[in-house]
Amino acid sequence: MRDAIRQLRIRGAPAIGIAAAMGVVLGIRNYSGTDRAGFLRHLGQVCDDLAGARPTAVNLPWALDRMRRVARSMESDDVDAIKLTLLEEARRIRDEDAAMCRAIGHNGESLIKPGSGVLTHCNAGSLATAELGTALAPMYVAHEAGRAFRVYVDETRPLLQGSRLTAWELQQTGIDVTVICDNMAGTLMKQGRVDLVITGADRIAANGDAANKIGTYSLAVLAEAHGVPFYVAAPSSTFDLSIEDGGAIPIEQRDPEEVRRGFGRLTAPPEVRCYCPAFDVTPARLIHGIITERGIIRPVDRSGIATMLS
Amino acid sequence: MRDAIRQLRIRGAPAIGIAAAMGVVLGIRNYSGTDRAGFLRHLGQVCDDLAGARPTAVNLPWALDRMRRVARSMESDDVDAIKLTLLEEARRIRDEDAAMCRAIGHNGESLIKPGSGVLTHCNAGSLATAELGTALAPMYVAHEAGRAFRVYVDETRPLLQGSRLTAWELQQTGIDVTVICDNMAGTLMKQGRVDLVITGADRIAANGDAANKIGTYSLAVLAEAHGVPFYVAAPSSTFDLSIEDGGAIPIEQRDPEEVRRGFGRLTAPPEVRCYCPAFDVTPARLIHGIITERGIIRPVDRSGIATMLS
Repeated sequence: MRDAIRQLRIRGAPAIGIAAAMGVVLGIRNYSGTDRAGFLRHLGQVCDDLAGARPTAVNLPWALDRMRRVARSMESDDVDAIKLTLLEEARRIRDEDAAMCRAIGHNGESLIKPGSGVLTHCNAGSLATAELGTALAPMYVAHEAGRAFRVYVDETRPLLQGSRLTAWELQQTGIDVTVICDNMAGTLMKQGRVDLVITGADRIAANGDAANKIGTYSLAVLAEAHGVPFYVAAPSSTFDLSIEDGGAIPIEQRDPEEVRRGFGRLTAPPEVRCYCPAFDVTPARLIHGIITERGIIRPVDRSGIATMLS
Repeated sequence: MRDAIRQLRIRGAPAIGIAAAMGVVLGIRNYSGTDRAGFLRHLGQVCDDLAGARPTAVNLPWALDRMRRVARSMESDDVDAIKLTLLEEARRIRDEDAAMCRAIGHNGESLIKPGSGVLTHCNAGSLATAELGTALAPMYVAHEAGRAFRVYVDETRPLLQGSRLTAWELQQTGIDVTVICDNMAGTLMKQGRVDLVITGADRIAANGDAANKIGTYSLAVLAEAHGVPFYVAAPSSTFDLSIEDGGAIPIEQRDPEEVRRGFGRLTAPPEVRCYCPAFDVTPARLIHGIITERGIIRPVDRSGIATMLS
């Protein structure tokens, strides 16, 4: 499980948290001792081992802490009972995430009208969460309700999460999906084929500025220029109220090789400089609404966010 | 030469025209007869053969017609004299293109201020023309003048002409170049790193609407939203005054495999629909100026274009 997380075979913050919790269960399952203190030491090693898989993902330490706390709280139980409770806790983390995704889906699904075109970027779907995803959840719920609509997916350079993940999972469900290159989104909007944009978010500041996969900001500017509503779908845990606005959100710079050699082949001169930010920040003024598991924050401003989260 | 054009080893409309004229010279060089009528039949076959390499490129039939006309006009000359004149005509086509590129460069170079950032898309440079290119010509001339500036190049999905061609040729010349994914342009503009956008054009309507590589339109919208001037560089031959506005410019749809499998590897589900327009149209209102070999058309409107071309 540690290797799977490290090598991005599991990615997406919620999925990483769930996988880490399941990884704890795998790691302690075959522990043969009956000594509670020894078991807790072993559990600590398993958690430390998993924690090192991707040290920056916030859901990873969160899920591991939760598992550790459950075990420590069982002061008078034997090892087998703790093992069983840890399995239940891992399942609970998964179930809570699934319920949260479904609530986002229900809160957002009415935005998708029959026959409309929806554009999304990157992957904030089943492959990143327990079940329905965040940005894709309204689409899945609308599809379950029998509504017909079309989804356009940006391939999402450099790592192509849109074409490789989102297109695949939407197709599996039978949703009408078309892959485009990132640079085609503006033209689609000009043609009137996009009625709505929904993306996920990695972190949202107290004023509503939202960090998400690089390219999201350009989409939001293009959407505004074409009068297309731009929505973000994210659980309330994505809000970081300690950050006043998007300018304070740190932007990870990735290895330029992802641009230069993103497909296993050299696609730029070997010595040329490449720029590779992982995320960009979309200002709140470009976001029509933020779809959370509690409801839609609309308009997106400091007080609307504070009210929804309180 | 026919195979080189067909397989896109030579691409860019002006380069294709020059290559076709040179291809005619290669095709008739070893003709051993001395009969003028027989030679002209052979020349006709050579031209027909080259014309089939890429039937839609406008410079290809244009250059072949020019070569044919030169040969036909020499009614009292022998075969050797015609051969020599055809070589001179091919060189003239190349030299005229080189001079035109240089004139575009001189007309546009003052737009590039010391220390500024210039963004371009696709390849409208040396690798598409005889010498300096169109969009890149102002950069080359500014560089020759000793001015320091930075160029950002969109990689230009699906075929990556930006990262594979433009980045390479600018780097060869010693110009400071950085490759970005297409979806990063908006973020660069927001950061204030782009002072000017210059792209080429494939066809410009009488009102100034310009067709160019897919993604150009999005760049123009983003540039306007950030107050960044957006220029097109193109020779006067790019104007098609028979077309009133951009809505009438036909847009070639390319093989979806270019999106799905652009790098020899499958990067989207094999059965998923992919959209792959080769070009988009940027409306004249988003274009600050069109840099031609005759001067800069600014503002871009019907009367400005008519005056410059008359």
